[in-house]
Amino acid sequence: MLHYPEPITNLIDGFMRLPGIGPKTAQRLAFHVLNMKEEDVLEIAKALVNAKRHLSHCSVCCNITDVNPCRFCQDTMRQRSVICVVQEPKDVAAMERTREFNGMYHVLHGALSPMEGIGPEDIRITELLKRVADEEVQEVILATNPTVEGEATAMYLSRLLRPFQLKVTRIAHGLPVGADLEYADEVTLSKALEGRREL
Amino acid sequence: MLHYPEPITNLIDGFMRLPGIGPKTAQRLAFHVLNMKEEDVLEIAKALVNAKRHLSHCSVCCNITDVNPCRFCQDTMRQRSVICVVQEPKDVAAMERTREFNGMYHVLHGALSPMEGIGPEDIRITELLKRVADEEVQEVILATNPTVEGEATAMYLSRLLRPFQLKVTRIAHGLPVGADLEYADEVTLSKALEGRREL
Repeated sequence: MLHYPEPITNLIDGFMRLPGIGPKTAQRLAFHVLNMKEEDVLEIAKALVNAKRHLSHCSVCCNITDVNPCRFCQDTMRQRSVICVVQEPKDVAAMERTREFNGMYHVLHGALSPMEGIGPEDIRITELLKRVADEEVQEVILATNPTVEGEATAMYLSRLLRPFQLKVTRIAHGLPVGADLEYADEVTLSKALEGRREL
Repeated sequence: MLHYPEPITNLIDGFMRLPGIGPKTAQRLAFHVLNMKEEDVLEIAKALVNAKRHLSHCSVCCNITDVNPCRFCQDTMRQRSVICVVQEPKDVAAMERTREFNGMYHVLHGALSPMEGIGPEDIRITELLKRVADEEVQEVILATNPTVEGEATAMYLSRLLRPFQLKVTRIAHGLPVGADLEYADEVTLSKALEGRREL
């Protein structure tokens, strides 16, 4: 990067702070920026600053939001008796895309991971317990990822929620739609078998 | 993207204007930005704007620069009698990395490509001819890429430069260092054979 003027080096360095962007990609992006219209570049710069400045966590569900409480928590059309617990704000968007869920959300912002030193106090568990105690919640759906960390978090939460006398459910494991039995890994297949339902 | 607050959607849209960044990557980058420190985000935003605002093309060699003439053209230690013609500013950096070249540069900002409608007036050829006529240039090294467009540009330039009575050379084609003869494509191999030198 030695042979570029400083404004380019700075921009390349800037891009390299983003995940999955190495020196080559950063350089390609930087040169692309130089060829963009100035107003487009300004818009991206503004979007960066605004995203950082105008977003915070919803005081109810901890989802990322620009209003507080967030739009989901404000929406009176949604069913307040069901809370779907997810790891990340992206997962809320994934759930919404199904159009099958009309309850409330709770975003943990992570999952338990002793390997990475993430304990119960590092994710939004206290906030969930407070909601469950305060509100007229009847069901908590644990929709953390089907990974080791997600499973551990679901198990941990289900134990914490037991005293509250409500339904605690876990989203189903099984074969993804369109998958081929032949190529499914054993764990998924055995989960699919275990979770079989009567027709 | 429907289910995110507007500042996030704007940022995702911003990232998607960059080359090679689709909706999934843009989303990943946007969420990463939300977790970054505000000063780091501000720095990236500033780098974007500065790169666009404080850079222009050197009035001599057309390279991208923050001072005019650029550092290469100002450098009195460099050999003014040799001009190396490249397609892009990145190619200048590549040449510099070899530490083998100590002459001047000329950046065309593209290559002739009838397919994409890029003709001689779309790249910096007039500027090159002016330099060759004005200055005490003895050699022009055509270092455009070894692609169809780069070759066509080199051929075109060599014809234009003929009247000026100077040495016009083209960088060598051949096998890349460390390559395996067995896996070389025929064109490269025949170029390597054609360009053989006595030892």
